[in-house]
Amino acid sequence: MAQNIIVKSRIRLSDFDPAEDFGLRKEKTRAATHRLLERIGGLQAKLYANTRRAVLVVMQGMDAAGKDGAAKSLLEFVNPAGVEVTDFKAPSSEELSHDFLWRVHHAVPRYGRIGVFNRSHYEDVLVVRVMKLAGKEVWAPRFEQINRFELNLHQAGYVQLKFYLHISREEQAERLRARLADPSKNWKFEGADLDMRERWPEFMTAYEEAINRCSPKHARWHIIPADKKWVRDHLIAQQVCAAMEEMELAWPKPREDLSKYRVK
Amino acid sequence: MAQNIIVKSRIRLSDFDPAEDFGLRKEKTRAATHRLLERIGGLQAKLYANTRRAVLVVMQGMDAAGKDGAAKSLLEFVNPAGVEVTDFKAPSSEELSHDFLWRVHHAVPRYGRIGVFNRSHYEDVLVVRVMKLAGKEVWAPRFEQINRFELNLHQAGYVQLKFYLHISREEQAERLRARLADPSKNWKFEGADLDMRERWPEFMTAYEEAINRCSPKHARWHIIPADKKWVRDHLIAQQVCAAMEEMELAWPKPREDLSKYRVK
Repeated sequence: MAQNIIVKSRIRLSDFDPAEDFGLRKEKTRAATHRLLERIGGLQAKLYANTRRAVLVVMQGMDAAGKDGAAKSLLEFVNPAGVEVTDFKAPSSEELSHDFLWRVHHAVPRYGRIGVFNRSHYEDVLVVRVMKLAGKEVWAPRFEQINRFELNLHQAGYVQLKFYLHISREEQAERLRARLADPSKNWKFEGADLDMRERWPEFMTAYEEAINRCSPKHARWHIIPADKKWVRDHLIAQQVCAAMEEMELAWPKPREDLSKYRVK
Repeated sequence: MAQNIIVKSRIRLSDFDPAEDFGLRKEKTRAATHRLLERIGGLQAKLYANTRRAVLVVMQGMDAAGKDGAAKSLLEFVNPAGVEVTDFKAPSSEELSHDFLWRVHHAVPRYGRIGVFNRSHYEDVLVVRVMKLAGKEVWAPRFEQINRFELNLHQAGYVQLKFYLHISREEQAERLRARLADPSKNWKFEGADLDMRERWPEFMTAYEEAINRCSPKHARWHIIPADKKWVRDHLIAQQVCAAMEEMELAWPKPREDLSKYRVK
């Protein structure tokens, strides 16, 4: 079922319905998600003992697409000590005075950890492109630069899962209105969100190109229908769980014969 | 003259004489070096005002090959504020818990600066290989990983110059003996240096492969005959000066018309 959310060949975002639920039933699915998240918790305990592998989850999507919520759900049963979450905001002056991958590489998780990027290096071919923060001669070569970077990470033992949280323009409107109306959500609202919203089609074009040009076998994009949070959380849990099971994580073998030790 | 020290096709280190001096005369050459270093100082002042370019100098060589001395000479007339020197020692446990390029990427200089790496990511295909700190399945893929990394840096505006300081085994013996004999040099001596020295041929094989596999047009290796320090310093100054002149650095144009300002 979830097969067709994994980008293995050229896609058009307009072919994907943000409200898709694959005919799943909400309560049953939530229970299944819960079980998946518990399994991820168990897998993470084994990953933590591993010194040559790590998991890197990239969350991308328009404002209010649910990146924070998706990360929170995914990490429900993992030990926070084994997780490194990085929010990428507008780059600092120190970050801007290096190549765009400098801050991203530094934020890559340690071996044994699950890293979650809330936004990522993809902003450098998304917001930078659409809002014209740099010219095409700057952002266009970045697709290949990203591919090189992610191939190096792959070869270094990083399992990479990239999720594009696909919401509809209408659903975004509702969520932004809620941020304006609800004092407990006011802090999430920024005027700049509306500028981005006005450029929805340009953002879709930019996402489509990033997804199509940067989805090699070892670092696939997943297109997550995200209008329904319970669908979103279920699909992400499924993909992460499957990827971690494929790692065939085992408790590391002791480096010496432990039978000679006696604890008195 | 210095043309043949730049690696543009497959080389054998045994074809290079560590005591080569190209028939140069010592005192005259030293004076010429001095002039080159002053020019580098001037070029660096212009680089410092530049926000999209930087220079990265990599110094590699056996123990006592003169990496520190060469860096000190090169930087004689540059403003220290425009320089970032990084000594790469044995990696810390935090560094080891990431991919090998993690610490290297973080040490890349800011735009506008000259960065000098005293040792570098090449140790991960040199000492790691020869001293068997990791298996071939780990170090062999690193040549291509390094090429990807350096290509990304090139495209991001970094001018890279890599110097292999080529000394003879005999010259090393003399310098190590001096470290043992001279109390002011004792601190530079480590017993492990002798273990490395015993594996001289293996190190030469490892250097040769690194140089041959990682010398693309945008990040060339230079083989610097280093038995004579004045020759070494001259050749490096020449190469760095030429590379910085090729950058055609100019003072950045003011972002606005300054004629409207009056300082009263």
